[in-house]
Amino acid sequence: MTEGRTGEVLGYGYGAPDTAHSPLDMEGLDLLKQTVLFTGEDERYLRMAGEVLEDQIEDVLDVWYGFVADHPHLIHYFSGPEGPDADYLERVRKRFHQWILDTCRRPYDQEWLNYQQEIGLRHTHEKKNETDGSHGTPNHIGMRYMIGFVYPITATMKPFLANKGHSAEEVDKMHQAWFKSVVMQVTLWCLPYARDGYF
Amino acid sequence: MTEGRTGEVLGYGYGAPDTAHSPLDMEGLDLLKQTVLFTGEDERYLRMAGEVLEDQIEDVLDVWYGFVADHPHLIHYFSGPEGPDADYLERVRKRFHQWILDTCRRPYDQEWLNYQQEIGLRHTHEKKNETDGSHGTPNHIGMRYMIGFVYPITATMKPFLANKGHSAEEVDKMHQAWFKSVVMQVTLWCLPYARDGYF
Repeated sequence: MTEGRTGEVLGYGYGAPDTAHSPLDMEGLDLLKQTVLFTGEDERYLRMAGEVLEDQIEDVLDVWYGFVADHPHLIHYFSGPEGPDADYLERVRKRFHQWILDTCRRPYDQEWLNYQQEIGLRHTHEKKNETDGSHGTPNHIGMRYMIGFVYPITATMKPFLANKGHSAEEVDKMHQAWFKSVVMQVTLWCLPYARDGYF
Repeated sequence: MTEGRTGEVLGYGYGAPDTAHSPLDMEGLDLLKQTVLFTGEDERYLRMAGEVLEDQIEDVLDVWYGFVADHPHLIHYFSGPEGPDADYLERVRKRFHQWILDTCRRPYDQEWLNYQQEIGLRHTHEKKNETDGSHGTPNHIGMRYMIGFVYPITATMKPFLANKGHSAEEVDKMHQAWFKSVVMQVTLWCLPYARDGYF
């Protein structure tokens, strides 16, 4: 099985029949969009961001992976008893790559909503490591780090959005659209973490 | 009992003996700070933001309240059977005012951590409306809106930070410090929402 941008991304199951089903419907998503002020304009700027980022994604991932590698409490989640698991890091990296593209290009419909539920579940006790089989890192990702990541995942993106000669206003609008989408997605990923009736 | 900036803020119990106790200690907070890249520099810029915002807080609250008032799914949380509860809105507003000052000026110590737990609990089924007695709005705030608010509470702040003639770099640093602190606090407020062992 090939991996990489044009090949198959292992463990990536967007739209697959066994993907989780979100308890939210389009109406629930619409209220969440309103809460983060996400509009059609943001969709257009995310498409623009997709063009801008397309050939820079590996550089973005270098920054994010460098950040994780610098913090023992974060690299912990990519480690087994023998230390960081290079194969696992690489598989996650390909899904992370695809996630950036999906954030910019996918329509935010029921299928997308279902995949956010799948992503959330995969970070919890419930589904952790089902995806990649046993690789020695059965670590549930604490909700604190799911939410905390809103900051680095948002702040580090701006210089990349500015790398292709767009106006300051365009860069800012792409960045705001990215920020809104990240907040919305992190919110959805936290759904399986919440007590019943608390989401 | 007087209310307002220099008087007593009803229901504000910072450091009070009956405040909740956070399950997190300083070590847990430190890891969260690292996750959102919060450093001593951010503390200094939050102090600066406190100076900049001090006489603009009511204007900030006008923006936030306008945003809530424009969205039925948000004003719902301030409403009873008769519609929006003006007294309740006013009491919350004074605590929101104080929260902006606390975010900029309080040391982020165990007492602060405990008060974040108290704030979180007060938004859940567990403690909702204990603070203000029965005012007909027994509405638990869904975790989705706690996290979703990261965006409006962060994005709307920047113009106010730019209102006092600071350099673009200073404004940006104040804003980044604000953003980091909001992400960190929202994370802490979500602790009581999480399933046992999921935070």
